Amino acid sequence: MTKTPVYCDYNAGAPIRAEAAVAMSRALAAGGNPSSVHSVGRRMRAMIEDARERIASALGASAENVVFTSGATEALHLVLDTFTAHRRAVSPPPAADENGDVSPKAPSVPEPSIVIAECEHDALFEDGRRRAMSRAPLQRNGLVDLDVLESVVREAPKPVLVAVQLANNETGVVQPIAKIAAICRQHGALLLVDAAQAFGRIPVNIADLDATYLVVSSHKLGGPTGVGALVLAPGAPFVTTRFGGGQERGRRPGTENGPAVVGFATAVDWALPDMDREARRLAEMRDKFESRLPSDAVVFGADAPRLPNTSNFALPGIIAETAVIALDLEGVALSSGAACSSGKVRSSRVLAAMGVLPELAKAALRVSFGHGSKTSDVDEVLNALGKISARRDRGAAA
Amino acid sequence: MTKTPVYCDYNAGAPIRAEAAVAMSRALAAGGNPSSVHSVGRRMRAMIEDARERIASALGASAENVVFTSGATEALHLVLDTFTAHRRAVSPPPAADENGDVSPKAPSVPEPSIVIAECEHDALFEDGRRRAMSRAPLQRNGLVDLDVLESVVREAPKPVLVAVQLANNETGVVQPIAKIAAICRQHGALLLVDAAQAFGRIPVNIADLDATYLVVSSHKLGGPTGVGALVLAPGAPFVTTRFGGGQERGRRPGTENGPAVVGFATAVDWALPDMDREARRLAEMRDKFESRLPSDAVVFGADAPRLPNTSNFALPGIIAETAVIALDLEGVALSSGAACSSGKVRSSRVLAAMGVLPELAKAALRVSFGHGSKTSDVDEVLNALGKISARRDRGAAA
Repeated sequence: MTKTPVYCDYNAGAPIRAEAAVAMSRALAAGGNPSSVHSVGRRMRAMIEDARERIASALGASAENVVFTSGATEALHLVLDTFTAHRRAVSPPPAADENGDVSPKAPSVPEPSIVIAECEHDALFEDGRRRAMSRAPLQRNGLVDLDVLESVVREAPKPVLVAVQLANNETGVVQPIAKIAAICRQHGALLLVDAAQAFGRIPVNIADLDATYLVVSSHKLGGPTGVGALVLAPGAPFVTTRFGGGQERGRRPGTENGPAVVGFATAVDWALPDMDREARRLAEMRDKFESRLPSDAVVFGADAPRLPNTSNFALPGIIAETAVIALDLEGVALSSGAACSSGKVRSSRVLAAMGVLPELAKAALRVSFGHGSKTSDVDEVLNALGKISARRDRGAAA
Repeated sequence: MTKTPVYCDYNAGAPIRAEAAVAMSRALAAGGNPSSVHSVGRRMRAMIEDARERIASALGASAENVVFTSGATEALHLVLDTFTAHRRAVSPPPAADENGDVSPKAPSVPEPSIVIAECEHDALFEDGRRRAMSRAPLQRNGLVDLDVLESVVREAPKPVLVAVQLANNETGVVQPIAKIAAICRQHGALLLVDAAQAFGRIPVNIADLDATYLVVSSHKLGGPTGVGALVLAPGAPFVTTRFGGGQERGRRPGTENGPAVVGFATAVDWALPDMDREARRLAEMRDKFESRLPSDAVVFGADAPRLPNTSNFALPGIIAETAVIALDLEGVALSSGAACSSGKVRSSRVLAAMGVLPELAKAALRVSFGHGSKTSDVDEVLNALGKISARRDRGAAA
């Protein structure tokens, strides 16, 4: 590559903030196992606990309720596991007949009642669909249908866990968590909010959201990869399902990844004070970008509240799978609506849930800006899109 | 702290090798989500796959059989989970009576047959003891009692998973994995070898060990914390139990921690070519250290093969809990036989399994050297020990 690409894929992963990289490197150099009793270990312990305080404070939580994990995926799985164990603990045993036998038709352990939104990330969706689970559908604008959600939550056997992301990774659509939390509170359901894409971009406070469990990620806001956190509301049920060295108050075993935790907290330190101004700057860029798209462009989720940095759009006739590569050759790094680990582009499950037809969904491209984005990036992306559109038109004319 | 402490706690965590820190920092700066289709993502993908090749090659495995995790603890849990799922898949359903009912006394899902050695790390031991599990006892020298192990494996309902660490974290005792593998092969058992402490210190090759599953860690050999790997033998049963974005060939979901993986591979690149010479150097230091201990010192595991870098010893009358702190004040960072996450020192379960009396086990201290250790460190540790011994003697005389 002769030129640094214009990076517009912050929702896949933000470049690390320089301050976070420096703090992490220093912690790496300091070293030490935080469980060690000696000064080297205690110094690493102090760095981790200081980072925990800062992240807790940023999210309106107590430090003791912040559980560091290897990322948002692990944190989401931790909630599914702990909820399943919690449900097992609080549910009555199955009824037995007079011989003390239990019919094999009645499962000996009741299936958990998990209700997730159709827009949830694969990290939850794919794991969740192997468990007993109900799904709350989306409206055309990408917002969860609250009436259906309420009726599903009302009918589900207790205890119930509702999982709704704060902001969607593909469309940036922001869910009305306050209303969802009210439904959960009314029906005694626990609420898991996946804020991996929201944290650092819009306000995320576990008390304000009235969430039971909150999941955040480091590498979406400019911290290192390989670290995230599960944040618990006071009194949130937590049953340990993984055992080991007793780290993280017995909630998540394994030597804590101190340097990554320090990098995460440092990225938070830099992202949050500037968040409102940055949100306005990115929203301006995003709006300018969308206003200059060809008139036949479709912007997904545009009628709903969205993250300031995200635009998910389609130019009819352009196939995302080839467009991402063509744009990459033009020096613009963005993604299709959904990219899976194989590097293949597949049609978006989220857009399908919004009623977008497959032909249009196949054209979905996502631009997501962030802390390193420059105003001129908008023109660069539009120019590159213009070039591949021109090729499409020439192709169509030929 | 006015002086850099003499760090003798490599088994808790090695200081990061400069080369690994540099490689990791570069990968951090390069950034990108390896699942992204564009060049930034593909560059990170290439770095990860290159690192995977190098680590696979170091361990005698195929790259496709290396599954990166957040550390050895997660990798061990992954094996427990996948084995439990595998057993469920291959076991016949429970017998029902003529009404189709199953007695609640007969569990509807058969309990897995897991046999673990008494010396296994808490990461496995604590998780394992919540599952149906048999334990293979240790002999006084710290080696697994092979006769008992064989009889336990022979009796256990199939399929059976045997878990034995290659080298113990506390004593450094190296188990005769070849003999254990032969027992497993004879009785059709799968073998999990935890090589977290061994990798980079003694030869570790999955084919030579004849292991089904091999677990390694980065931060014990001078790579970053927060990364490890599960390595599979060809044909090793693997049932996915965690779903998400499909990363790691669907075996471990979550964005891969590329920079950490790169740091891990770089640490391996530097540890392995020099390993034999380094092992001789550290064994010389260790032997010199042990030869100069007071005559009433007891060295645990001294009659068994041990890692070259580890000495676990007791000076009768010195309590490890206070000695670790006193030595820290003298500028020497080492640990007691076992340190738990709370920072408290407890008596060692491993030493107890070797028949060490509690009074003596409470005195156990561990010196573990590594790549940054200097010959003069031996004298520093002995001097510091001499000072606290002198205090003990004065105390006893007073």
